Amino acid sequence: MRYAILAIFLLIGFVSCKQINPEKQVNQTVNKTDSIAIKQIFNTALSNGQCYQWLDVLSNDIGGRLSGSPEAQQAVKWGENLMMDLGFDKVWLQPVMVPHWVRGEKEEAYFTVNNTNYNVPICALGGSIETPENGISGEVIEVNSIEEAESLGEKLKGKIVFFNRHFDDTFLQTFRAYGGCVDQRGGGARATGKFGVLGAIIRSLTHSIDDYPHTGAMSYRGIPDHEKVPTAAISTKAANLLSEQLKENPDLKFYFKQSCKTLPDTPSFNVIGEITGSKYPDKFITIGGHLDSWDIGDGAHDDGAGIVQSIEVLRLFKENNITPKHTLRAVLFMNEENGLRGGRKYAEEAKKNNEIHIAALESDSGGFTPRGFSFDANTKYFDLFMSWKTLLAPYGLHDIGKGESGADIGPLKSETISLFGYRPDSQRYFDYHHASTDTFDKVNKRELELGAASMTSIIYLLDTYLD
Amino acid sequence: MRYAILAIFLLIGFVSCKQINPEKQVNQTVNKTDSIAIKQIFNTALSNGQCYQWLDVLSNDIGGRLSGSPEAQQAVKWGENLMMDLGFDKVWLQPVMVPHWVRGEKEEAYFTVNNTNYNVPICALGGSIETPENGISGEVIEVNSIEEAESLGEKLKGKIVFFNRHFDDTFLQTFRAYGGCVDQRGGGARATGKFGVLGAIIRSLTHSIDDYPHTGAMSYRGIPDHEKVPTAAISTKAANLLSEQLKENPDLKFYFKQSCKTLPDTPSFNVIGEITGSKYPDKFITIGGHLDSWDIGDGAHDDGAGIVQSIEVLRLFKENNITPKHTLRAVLFMNEENGLRGGRKYAEEAKKNNEIHIAALESDSGGFTPRGFSFDANTKYFDLFMSWKTLLAPYGLHDIGKGESGADIGPLKSETISLFGYRPDSQRYFDYHHASTDTFDKVNKRELELGAASMTSIIYLLDTYLD
Repeated sequence: MRYAILAIFLLIGFVSCKQINPEKQVNQTVNKTDSIAIKQIFNTALSNGQCYQWLDVLSNDIGGRLSGSPEAQQAVKWGENLMMDLGFDKVWLQPVMVPHWVRGEKEEAYFTVNNTNYNVPICALGGSIETPENGISGEVIEVNSIEEAESLGEKLKGKIVFFNRHFDDTFLQTFRAYGGCVDQRGGGARATGKFGVLGAIIRSLTHSIDDYPHTGAMSYRGIPDHEKVPTAAISTKAANLLSEQLKENPDLKFYFKQSCKTLPDTPSFNVIGEITGSKYPDKFITIGGHLDSWDIGDGAHDDGAGIVQSIEVLRLFKENNITPKHTLRAVLFMNEENGLRGGRKYAEEAKKNNEIHIAALESDSGGFTPRGFSFDANTKYFDLFMSWKTLLAPYGLHDIGKGESGADIGPLKSETISLFGYRPDSQRYFDYHHASTDTFDKVNKRELELGAASMTSIIYLLDTYLD
Repeated sequence: MRYAILAIFLLIGFVSCKQINPEKQVNQTVNKTDSIAIKQIFNTALSNGQCYQWLDVLSNDIGGRLSGSPEAQQAVKWGENLMMDLGFDKVWLQPVMVPHWVRGEKEEAYFTVNNTNYNVPICALGGSIETPENGISGEVIEVNSIEEAESLGEKLKGKIVFFNRHFDDTFLQTFRAYGGCVDQRGGGARATGKFGVLGAIIRSLTHSIDDYPHTGAMSYRGIPDHEKVPTAAISTKAANLLSEQLKENPDLKFYFKQSCKTLPDTPSFNVIGEITGSKYPDKFITIGGHLDSWDIGDGAHDDGAGIVQSIEVLRLFKENNITPKHTLRAVLFMNEENGLRGGRKYAEEAKKNNEIHIAALESDSGGFTPRGFSFDANTKYFDLFMSWKTLLAPYGLHDIGKGESGADIGPLKSETISLFGYRPDSQRYFDYHHASTDTFDKVNKRELELGAASMTSIIYLLDTYLD
């Protein structure tokens, strides 16, 4: 019954939309139609959502799924089967070669003061080399930036460099705090190897003061092998303790051992599911997240949430009998975390096949309560997108504006595509990001579902108003 | 340094404010001053906040603190000591007699199908009588509302009535879903005792499908003793199982046992701390939450969060060297959960002492990420309050509008007071509300601190713009 009414309103909507000039303000009739459609999308997502149950399987039955791992391969199969079971018009695997880094045995670390060893939680950074089998031991030099480390130059020789710049807690958006520190993780080892450091220890990238080290990608970016040194993240609590102890005992010794290594590249896949567009079957709207995750948690927020939400967007179109004008694609990108090979491959193939991509949306900021969308768009549609604020505000989606979209869809960027990033509340994200605490129990069902409904709503609007 | 700059801006602010007519739009100069002050408040709360650490003590060292319990008494002492340590101008205890209900031994419940017992998690509702020592056993009649139960009348005799109306998941604001079901808990037993039911079992008031029963207040409201029957909440998962089994086995037997009882009223206190106003020392702005909590969790979200945030508001004024014009009071109300005696006593004393209360703010919706404020105000200030939206939006505070304020400050209501309720995101609240899962680990430090900063900002604006 309610679907029949919706269908009538949608019909009116589609008819009216043809006359819409994106530069002009959207008229009242269409706003009402859209408002009813969006309400219906949210109702369905909240009362009959499926993404939370899917995330349970992906997180708990498969778990952490770093590129090249057996779990990543299981996740590919899971995604393919799920989208086939949902009856999408087309489901296929897009081959892509991915890096294959393995952590090896659990890392060990301690520092020694007055013959007492203090064990500290560390984890190797993705891409790091291993330590010698007996580990590494040396005095520690604490720095707050790569610049500070570089200014020390030869004084670093034979030492372990300890990057300890903290998150700036005053940023409202926690991604800004992350952005202010992530260079230490990505480039700390690379910048200091040439000065003869033994290794690089990086303060975990989180606001939280706890015992969980946060991994993440680092890169040697083609420096000579003899300059490559092992590098690991240390928990924030241990970083604070080490820093404190260094003040009184500047010559304390730090020991760590890890056995991670990079194996040859291995074949993997992006997983793609489609609903064919009724009017423009050859014009694509991509909705995606990344299927790979770090190995030490189960990747529920990063980015299991984005994966199940992307699939749910297509399912919500089907369940609400909304036939998209354009072809909608749910893309489960492989290898965002340590290579972005999936995102690059997808854009490469799109170009090769002369596909016309009019919009793409990525969810890779966790499964938290909705706040808005940022878009990285040609200015042509700016006013149109901003006019949707009143439609979306009742759902807590107030933060609509220009900004970054997503790493995986970034390579699609051109003059003609509108790229969107889903922006949930960011306060809790870095408690779990890349840590063993990124697990299914940290995801709230309603918050995840509201995200899926928000994403479906913006895709509904893009599909309705763009040609 | 930064405080000096702030002080100058605040000075300009206070001078300018004198000319402000609340009916008119706030001018640009003042907006800028306010904007700087609010930024400073948020910076301090996030980088040097204390409320999270206080909540750790209240939740973990004291724990659940139902009115009349030793823990409630410890919490009174804790609140008094804390506010004295913080150097507030005046700290005192306001005596109030409170109900004293005790849960007794852990409840037991199971239902029996084909000689198999299925244990189910229940907890007695606050105010309920005990069962006989050997428990109660009877057939079950499932209903979806009090009206349905009443329509069954004498058919209920000798049965256990099972109220199983679910939350409506489609409400965006979860408090609306709660509001749609809470009558079952409050009045289910009262309405059916007269038909000779043996007891009333109530589906837990939560969206979450899990194993945790959610307690809460019920009332017999003066019905005769022989009509009083014991009543308990059952977990949602068990409620679903029971409902399912009843379809196939309508004559299954349900057993439950509880030993709760109501003891004589006992003396307790509201805890009050003040910073004296510089210009209007005899005009009061109250900021509060409730100090009591249910006994089965540690009351971290309900309402430890509101308690520590209220105290933090006054501390943030002091730390930022903002001297309030009006006297600010942090009030830790006793007995919101099962009596509201503290809220009533506070209003009664205010009236008796001819105190002039110009505004009050309550935080009793959990320590979640900020969304806004609702106010229950004389229309005089409506435009003024709405004009603050642009100042508050950068902090995620978009939902500003008329609505309920808070139970404890409700009795203060008059023609001349503006009552505000702090409204954080509501999605996770009923996962924990009144359950054993309402514990400190469910509170995110930044979300709690952002709430305290939001509250401080609205109090700063009220203090600045009201006379």
